[in-house]
Amino acid sequence: MLTIGALVFPKFELLDLFGPLEMFGMHPKTFDIRIVAEVSEPVASTQGPRAAVDTLTGSATKFDILLVPGGAGVRHEIENQALLGWLGQAAADAKIVTSVCTGSALLARAGLLDGLRATTNKRAFDWVASLGPATHWQRRARWVEDGRFITASGVSAGIDMALAVIARELGPDAARDAALWAEYLPNTDPEDDPFAAD
Amino acid sequence: MLTIGALVFPKFELLDLFGPLEMFGMHPKTFDIRIVAEVSEPVASTQGPRAAVDTLTGSATKFDILLVPGGAGVRHEIENQALLGWLGQAAADAKIVTSVCTGSALLARAGLLDGLRATTNKRAFDWVASLGPATHWQRRARWVEDGRFITASGVSAGIDMALAVIARELGPDAARDAALWAEYLPNTDPEDDPFAAD
Repeated sequence: MLTIGALVFPKFELLDLFGPLEMFGMHPKTFDIRIVAEVSEPVASTQGPRAAVDTLTGSATKFDILLVPGGAGVRHEIENQALLGWLGQAAADAKIVTSVCTGSALLARAGLLDGLRATTNKRAFDWVASLGPATHWQRRARWVEDGRFITASGVSAGIDMALAVIARELGPDAARDAALWAEYLPNTDPEDDPFAAD
Repeated sequence: MLTIGALVFPKFELLDLFGPLEMFGMHPKTFDIRIVAEVSEPVASTQGPRAAVDTLTGSATKFDILLVPGGAGVRHEIENQALLGWLGQAAADAKIVTSVCTGSALLARAGLLDGLRATTNKRAFDWVASLGPATHWQRRARWVEDGRFITASGVSAGIDMALAVIARELGPDAARDAALWAEYLPNTDPEDDPFAAD
């Protein structure tokens, strides 16, 4: 069983979080999902709906997989030293660290992507890249795997990234099954980025 | 401004709900999203994560658009007469009634799809169809629009269905913008169903 710590903060992006969690949730015998936040009250997304919190960052719980979404709130959280500190420790404890969209800005600000290849969404690319000058930012990528750090580009790319993690842990058939059940046409090639020209 | 009443019940499917809400949430000046449930406590999805509740079914609040997700919990809720009663009244008050995946089973059981064309996901097709014998179930469809009732097939099809509703309300450019921002390749043809042969 692999525990997933899925971070939420005020104004996280709904699909960045719940797209990947849908796919991981197709294999409940392997992945145990926990929503993690600094506060115990439900946390509102950019879109309005609120996620209930399962585990506090202050509990210092270790997770096998971290999932860091993006969203409008990232612009605030990049100054949140307590959260970045938690992220650094949680990432050190984790087997796999993932982000979606501007979630990679938080990984970069925590110093976790220095010297690594990573990506982020197209609409905030230059801003995110400026936050991690020691990172090799990839402008054309559906997602980027560099060792145990896996960063996805914009929003829905997180679904394909999650399927890649499932393939890594359980094999390609398990990823294909999850996509098929969700009637989702997966992009299985991290370099096939239909939005790179945008 | 159009209010969206997004229903949750125990073991709703995460992406059925949050995929469409991500797209509606791209146009916050038009769509105001509320999570609706029978209880005020956060409601757990099939995958585990819990959604906080904004509005109780008992408040008899009217919504312009209803969104009914599917999920493992549908098998229980088809016997929930109180919920089906709420659904009937809320649908009567709404301009547009949508469902994703097995959410159409709840619409069918509430008698809302009698005489209409509708669809559901592939994996539960025959079971859902058996619950609505007076409905013209479409086996090959990404989604089906019959007047103000719009039913999507499995899970991720709800994203395309939501984009169709956005196109209906705000025009195709607004739908295209939402998809592009989310780096999502939309399926804009309701009859283009890559999973029909499954």
